[in-house]
Amino acid sequence: MTAPTDTFAPSSESLAEPISAEEIFAAHEGGKLSVAVERPLATKRDLSIAYTPGVAQVSRAIAADPALARTHTWASRLVAVVSDGTAVLGLGDIGPSASLPVMEGKSALFKTFGGLDSIPIVLDTTDVDEIVQTLVRIAPSFGAVNLEDVAAPRCFELEARLIEALDMPVMHDDQHGTAVVVLAALTNAATVVGKELSSMRAVIAGAGAAGIAIAEILLASGLTDVVLLDSKGAIHAGRPGLSGLKAEYAARTNPRRVEGGTAEALAGADVFIGVSSSTVPEEDLAGMAEGAIVFALSNPDPEVAPDVAARHAAVVATGRSDFPNQINNVLAFPGIFRGALDAGARRITPAMKLAAARAIAGLALDGLSADYIVPSPLDPRVAPAVTAAVAAAVVPGE
Amino acid sequence: MTAPTDTFAPSSESLAEPISAEEIFAAHEGGKLSVAVERPLATKRDLSIAYTPGVAQVSRAIAADPALARTHTWASRLVAVVSDGTAVLGLGDIGPSASLPVMEGKSALFKTFGGLDSIPIVLDTTDVDEIVQTLVRIAPSFGAVNLEDVAAPRCFELEARLIEALDMPVMHDDQHGTAVVVLAALTNAATVVGKELSSMRAVIAGAGAAGIAIAEILLASGLTDVVLLDSKGAIHAGRPGLSGLKAEYAARTNPRRVEGGTAEALAGADVFIGVSSSTVPEEDLAGMAEGAIVFALSNPDPEVAPDVAARHAAVVATGRSDFPNQINNVLAFPGIFRGALDAGARRITPAMKLAAARAIAGLALDGLSADYIVPSPLDPRVAPAVTAAVAAAVVPGE
Repeated sequence: MTAPTDTFAPSSESLAEPISAEEIFAAHEGGKLSVAVERPLATKRDLSIAYTPGVAQVSRAIAADPALARTHTWASRLVAVVSDGTAVLGLGDIGPSASLPVMEGKSALFKTFGGLDSIPIVLDTTDVDEIVQTLVRIAPSFGAVNLEDVAAPRCFELEARLIEALDMPVMHDDQHGTAVVVLAALTNAATVVGKELSSMRAVIAGAGAAGIAIAEILLASGLTDVVLLDSKGAIHAGRPGLSGLKAEYAARTNPRRVEGGTAEALAGADVFIGVSSSTVPEEDLAGMAEGAIVFALSNPDPEVAPDVAARHAAVVATGRSDFPNQINNVLAFPGIFRGALDAGARRITPAMKLAAARAIAGLALDGLSADYIVPSPLDPRVAPAVTAAVAAAVVPGE
Repeated sequence: MTAPTDTFAPSSESLAEPISAEEIFAAHEGGKLSVAVERPLATKRDLSIAYTPGVAQVSRAIAADPALARTHTWASRLVAVVSDGTAVLGLGDIGPSASLPVMEGKSALFKTFGGLDSIPIVLDTTDVDEIVQTLVRIAPSFGAVNLEDVAAPRCFELEARLIEALDMPVMHDDQHGTAVVVLAALTNAATVVGKELSSMRAVIAGAGAAGIAIAEILLASGLTDVVLLDSKGAIHAGRPGLSGLKAEYAARTNPRRVEGGTAEALAGADVFIGVSSSTVPEEDLAGMAEGAIVFALSNPDPEVAPDVAARHAAVVATGRSDFPNQINNVLAFPGIFRGALDAGARRITPAMKLAAARAIAGLALDGLSADYIVPSPLDPRVAPAVTAAVAAAVVPGE
């Protein structure tokens, strides 16, 4: 599975100067993270405060009042970036050690964009029971879990089980980070084409982690005509052999019971969202409604080239930074986790995700156009705005 | 259990300005650690190198050659500071969350003195099987394990099981860090009093984590007349009811089969090492040999006040920084782990511990006296010297 929206492709200017393998490997030597000491330990007095005997007072206080762990350790502002290495970028199941550079990169993004500390925890097991048990046992070490690059459909059960088992925010970013940014972009694209979000017909190609989560957030945003496609075509209530989540979404989506492939699904559709790593034929796009919106999010190769899509769509977005409208998870996850942790949230709720999408969309309203429906991943306003919106959406005690 | 040697008590100068609880709590607000990004992510190009698409090349390379994880992730230089919170400083079993400030402090020491990154992993289980299983599952995330503040006798089994299960350096610092510094100090104390280390009679009060490890390293250093005392008195081969490690050490120590308490054990002894949190009567010390050595290491209250001990001993050491000769673990563990990791060691062997002790002792030879048998914990020469000595003692492939 690719992580279609979680990507920084080279920008057009940097493409002029391609990045060599040497440069990439050199930048990874020794890893990309380090642990820093917040207050220097230069004198015996410093040591007596940060370590024994001083620290004993803090430990004793936490033992008496566990709530103090929240204010007097780093755990409550620390995100565990957790992966079993089974669906790493477009590389598939490459195992925990090979996934570690990606998780270090994710931690670097958390720090750079959200000011959040995080530690990669890569797992030498792919068993859901074992992963849940392991994270429960080490849970006092951190304050939130960002699940990353876990293969579908296991990722759905794992996330649900962890949310149940851990009293802290848990989010599988490949699902919900993607979905939040897609919703933000789609909200603004609807404005650009002058349509009502909730009345649009949407087609999602790909029923993996991202596709399912996108379907869910579109339903939560009022869309009723959403068609999910997997490798066998449209998922509909009459399709034989469906089970699990696909059976659930067959019942909740595709009210017109569309059957067939992208051609049938796209006929008259307002929105195409590709998270499938496959391709969509131009003639299928030609059947979309006037003012169509195409998000071709697979990386590095979008489901359709943006210039081809533009012949049939009023707004086009990709996962790449060398085209306009880059759908990039980094717009969402740093602020979502930061807002959740700042507000002491115990879960990441649908309301928090919708608030994040609204905040992201809002930042692109000034200058909104077919080529500018989401802010740049480097826009420094994004994480603070998402943080504030998410924190405001936290219901105390929920 | 106290951690007698792992302590920074206020120095005499700072005692003039006592440290208030307010100052201690303020210094712990938000925790003491953070995660830093080694190379800033300021441009799209930076992001394309550290994250997708660039990072995929590194992940693919590690998948093809797992040895590259050592050079191109932070795991191989990352120490997990692991505790179940069952024997925290002198506070006992206060649980994982309350132990976290201590583990953060330990990480701060690792960074400050050894330049090593580390992350606290505190465990919501005290079951040895579960702890081993948990650490095995997350082992690809780090390169070494510093066990900390785990209660005896469970700590012995846990350390042995982890050494067996994990292909990386594992050390319970309360045992071996303490033992290494004690050996360093004792080596120099022997020189001061003009005795041969191996011919000395030594008495260790306390058969917990530190006491057992000290006995072990003294035996490994050639001492043959070592008597261990627990709360019931001298451990000897004829004592009924001994089992496990105490039975093992009853067979390996106390060759003269000394019975009774400190009075009997100390009669004619050259060395007293207290790691018991109990007290030793002055009259018992009076029975020691000429040129006696007393290490009263319990904190904050040594087994005997240094001025009282000095009436009967030629060399006196404590765990406190406000008296001469502070026996402090920080002299050992940063360099031991740094040396092991630098050299790619798979285990921390007895030879590496003895090398560390020799290196520490060697740094106090210039100016050696009854009041200067070990370097100061703040002496910047220590960690590099220990690192070099430990790395040199690593046998490749061992």
